[in-house]
Amino acid sequence: MEIILGPTQYGKAETRIVRIYRDGPEHQIRDLNVSTALRGDFDDAHLRGDQERVLPTDTQKNTAYAYAREQGVDEIEGYALALALHFVDEIEPVRAARVDVDEYLWERAAVGGQPHPHAFVRSGREIRTASAIVKGGGGSVVVWVLAGLRDLVLLKSTGSEFAGFLKDRYTTLAETHDRVLATSLTARWRYVRPDGVDFDATYADVRRLLVERFAAVHSLALQQTLWEMGRAVLEAHEEVAEIRLSAPNRHHFLVDLAPFGLENPGEVFHADDRPYGLIQCAVEREGAPPAGPSWEPPACFA
Amino acid sequence: MEIILGPTQYGKAETRIVRIYRDGPEHQIRDLNVSTALRGDFDDAHLRGDQERVLPTDTQKNTAYAYAREQGVDEIEGYALALALHFVDEIEPVRAARVDVDEYLWERAAVGGQPHPHAFVRSGREIRTASAIVKGGGGSVVVWVLAGLRDLVLLKSTGSEFAGFLKDRYTTLAETHDRVLATSLTARWRYVRPDGVDFDATYADVRRLLVERFAAVHSLALQQTLWEMGRAVLEAHEEVAEIRLSAPNRHHFLVDLAPFGLENPGEVFHADDRPYGLIQCAVEREGAPPAGPSWEPPACFA
Amino acid sequence: MEIILGPTQYGKAETRIVRIYRDGPEHQIRDLNVSTALRGDFDDAHLRGDQERVLPTDTQKNTAYAYAREQGVDEIEGYALALALHFVDEIEPVRAARVDVDEYLWERAAVGGQPHPHAFVRSGREIRTASAIVKGGGGSVVVWVLAGLRDLVLLKSTGSEFAGFLKDRYTTLAETHDRVLATSLTARWRYVRPDGVDFDATYADVRRLLVERFAAVHSLALQQTLWEMGRAVLEAHEEVAEIRLSAPNRHHFLVDLAPFGLENPGEVFHADDRPYGLIQCAVEREGAPPAGPSWEPPACFA
Amino acid sequence: MEIILGPTQYGKAETRIVRIYRDGPEHQIRDLNVSTALRGDFDDAHLRGDQERVLPTDTQKNTAYAYAREQGVDEIEGYALALALHFVDEIEPVRAARVDVDEYLWERAAVGGQPHPHAFVRSGREIRTASAIVKGGGGSVVVWVLAGLRDLVLLKSTGSEFAGFLKDRYTTLAETHDRVLATSLTARWRYVRPDGVDFDATYADVRRLLVERFAAVHSLALQQTLWEMGRAVLEAHEEVAEIRLSAPNRHHFLVDLAPFGLENPGEVFHADDRPYGLIQCAVEREGAPPAGPSWEPPACFA
Repeated sequence: MEIILGPTQYGKAETRIVRIYRDGPEHQIRDLNVSTALRGDFDDAHLRGDQERVLPTDTQKNTAYAYAREQGVDEIEGYALALALHFVDEIEPVRAARVDVDEYLWERAAVGGQPHPHAFVRSGREIRTASAIVKGGGGSVVVWVLAGLRDLVLLKSTGSEFAGFLKDRYTTLAETHDRVLATSLTARWRYVRPDGVDFDATYADVRRLLVERFAAVHSLALQQTLWEMGRAVLEAHEEVAEIRLSAPNRHHFLVDLAPFGLENPGEVFHADDRPYGLIQCAVEREGAPPAGPSWEPPACFA
Repeated sequence: MEIILGPTQYGKAETRIVRIYRDGPEHQIRDLNVSTALRGDFDDAHLRGDQERVLPTDTQKNTAYAYAREQGVDEIEGYALALALHFVDEIEPVRAARVDVDEYLWERAAVGGQPHPHAFVRSGREIRTASAIVKGGGGSVVVWVLAGLRDLVLLKSTGSEFAGFLKDRYTTLAETHDRVLATSLTARWRYVRPDGVDFDATYADVRRLLVERFAAVHSLALQQTLWEMGRAVLEAHEEVAEIRLSAPNRHHFLVDLAPFGLENPGEVFHADDRPYGLIQCAVEREGAPPAGPSWEPPACFA
Repeated sequence: MEIILGPTQYGKAETRIVRIYRDGPEHQIRDLNVSTALRGDFDDAHLRGDQERVLPTDTQKNTAYAYAREQGVDEIEGYALALALHFVDEIEPVRAARVDVDEYLWERAAVGGQPHPHAFVRSGREIRTASAIVKGGGGSVVVWVLAGLRDLVLLKSTGSEFAGFLKDRYTTLAETHDRVLATSLTARWRYVRPDGVDFDATYADVRRLLVERFAAVHSLALQQTLWEMGRAVLEAHEEVAEIRLSAPNRHHFLVDLAPFGLENPGEVFHADDRPYGLIQCAVEREGAPPAGPSWEPPACFA
Repeated sequence: MEIILGPTQYGKAETRIVRIYRDGPEHQIRDLNVSTALRGDFDDAHLRGDQERVLPTDTQKNTAYAYAREQGVDEIEGYALALALHFVDEIEPVRAARVDVDEYLWERAAVGGQPHPHAFVRSGREIRTASAIVKGGGGSVVVWVLAGLRDLVLLKSTGSEFAGFLKDRYTTLAETHDRVLATSLTARWRYVRPDGVDFDATYADVRRLLVERFAAVHSLALQQTLWEMGRAVLEAHEEVAEIRLSAPNRHHFLVDLAPFGLENPGEVFHADDRPYGLIQCAVEREGAPPAGPSWEPPACFA
């Protein structure tokens, strides 16, 4: 049985680009971490060490910089898509390109209560994400665009239960009807099609809905909360085909203060590090276009 | 020449306490990382393995939990001080205690535009810090209280120069009159005395001043910006004896786009990781009480 | 178009288990980070908040501990497989289970040149990994077992070229026939079948081959080096069906010392952090059983 | 009461230098992370934004590179000292310089059982450290040289007790006469004087002694173990004036398996993350030269 080359992929990861718009007195900032990855006809590079068809990762980095200047970064989804299309359309051996962008968010510094025109403070802890995947070549391409966020840390101090669960011989967990529920949310959603979407507005509204549902749903389990969060997004946004949510259950354990003669009616908790529950689900729109490679990991074999 | 035991210290580091106040329908949250450290008459533990005078670090953790319930965590400075005083006053062999607290900040989740009573989102990236150091015993103690922040990430996209510097044979840096200035600020300040200070209000105002001065000062060097930031704090806050600022210069390098036929008038930057400049300074109030052990590292020999 | 629940998965991540064998005077240690994940008939938990069929993640953790005692951890592949089979065989609603194990390696402390019976030093930086995936139920299951490593940091100070590559308008990279080549390797391989494999011996030999080929192959590109590394593994190990390699190109840039009147004939380098190239490839044995879910990410939607 | 500038310091942190020696067919590698910091007459930079006396941190980085070429990096202590002396001797406003070096250790890749001449594998997890501090100017300087290590992870699976400790109302810890003792050791030692020391040989032997004593001492407390480790170093090495040890107590908690009908005679542990005990002590040689600034934190106000 012969030994053969399987799928391959290569690119430049984590190019840290800061794009300043300084057209008027009020500057804008977009602070990005850009990763590009290409697939295609690169077997000779592996099998024979022949680089003739290999566009260097250094060139991919240069292209990311140049596109930040030329195309600009009005919205990260559009920037990612333009870059991915470039690689498939203009670099002959490329059959598929993927561009992933993390965006770090900033707000204007306040001076005397007024937003400053060119000074900024990193805001929030969540990171906004976007991915564009383009397959094809020869003038015909298929495109997937995803948006998302990660490190959105949420906590509710009541309104969460966990009871009535399956028990086996290894079960020791007590049921509870009032616990702290906390997570660091990762959410990613794919668009039905990228044309005509106001990515910034959709991002803001999806984030709003996720936070609102997390807060407002009386939680019987993190599973149920995630479903309700995802469903609310799809109900409000027809342009979204599917959303996937990944939520570590960051356990907050009630500390036993009885040995010190103290009650602890849900007031003092130990925030534990590891292990943690990890709950994940997808919410889909029936009849939406197929996901294709949307949910493959960006670094394909890591 | 004999071999002897030098200074020693021990304690419990990074107890992750979440304190919920649920007195009414509107909950409050204080999310802490608490480290305690004791010095005193502990030579026998080292030299003879005799633990008779050693209060276990596990007990220190328990005490931190119990104090979060009994004393509460109205302000982290007060909580840290109460805990440090306890160890010095009530544990016989303890001659000095230090309590360091990091506080992770939360804001209320918004639902329908209204703040939710018991759901929260981690806000901002800066971490608020407090330290209390108590020395003494036998009824007489001396006390130092410090407050601070770290990971306050600031950037200005213009209004920063670096020119006219000393040059030697290893100097290649070009002078610039317009650059991006960015840092992740650590600030710590010590109070003249802890009595009567509104710690939460002072924290908020010091943070405001630091951001305002960073934004408003036309920077000739990060050194000068730091001095102006510190001076503004001491001018506005008589209760602050001294502030120390540590600011990595997070370099943003202008990308050379000329090879691609593009100008780059301060628009596309590479945000570099390492190395980074590190600029540090203290701003002091003449005649303030002595700093004592205020600026010793928390983990004394790390 | 209706909104429906898509794929779901849940489990307990990063249970840190240390298993000591103390049967004789010479102890053994296996230091693990265990993550379990289940799929199956859990829709009611999401859609209705009904936990009746949900085995708590806390129970999964308990099971991992109990299996470390009962089954032991002779080899992490066998331990992972036993645990995954348990969930599919004995927990009714489970249709698939995945167990991922990281193992941190230790060596015996040397005392007087002799290995100590119960004192250990963490060795090396690479982490050994294993995954077991079981699908099925009702007595009929399909099984995949993977092994691997990550954080194996390799460098060669010569014997690496990069030249003759594709150039476009964004290419500025100079060709080189002598550069530093460095990576932090992730490798994962799947077994044709798990029965009869000596996992510890295979692990040791695969690691040996990967290091040897990295060292010995004159590299025309990291792509070619990876192929040669993977091929050597499959040639030597018939029990391996496929190996996937992911290798960041940790760039070492020659420092320009000419401004200081110094030559730099490949002696002083700047080890850069970001961006980095990321080269990935699979090497497969034709006719091997299908990969099934082997290469899906462990946390399915992260 | 006037507001004045206090102590200041600035420098370039974390310059990642890799120095290859390629004089013969067998290459050598030294892989460094170098931080420089200067103190002196820099008030004008802060108070007036005047850089006339400020040597840029970029120049400090260049100097570190150039010295790696010119002076070489035979031993990191000598390299650090040469660099610190340069700044004090040759840069007029500098009154004190500190250079901290981390060294990442590599071993030769084995090919066919033989060490390869130019391929390397990162070895071990501990990081070797060195610091040189020079004060003075005008031809007269005082010098301190320190060596050390960090991230040396040690564990013993028996031979450790903790009992007979002080109890107060917050004490719940059970006494134990057989526990797992584990730490990630930081050690730093200062030399009586740097002249004539074989730094590489001393490093190797100090590391050996630390591991040996950790293993061989029957531990009644981590405090006692640290003292015995430090004492052994000073007894064997007259050139060492003082050693300081910082040891997190990485708690390994015995898992309660009784609910599953299983005994757990010291076999299955949970390796906890936080909180952790933190035990620190110094061991000194009486009559040694004064420590001066040796134990100040490198980043003075962080």
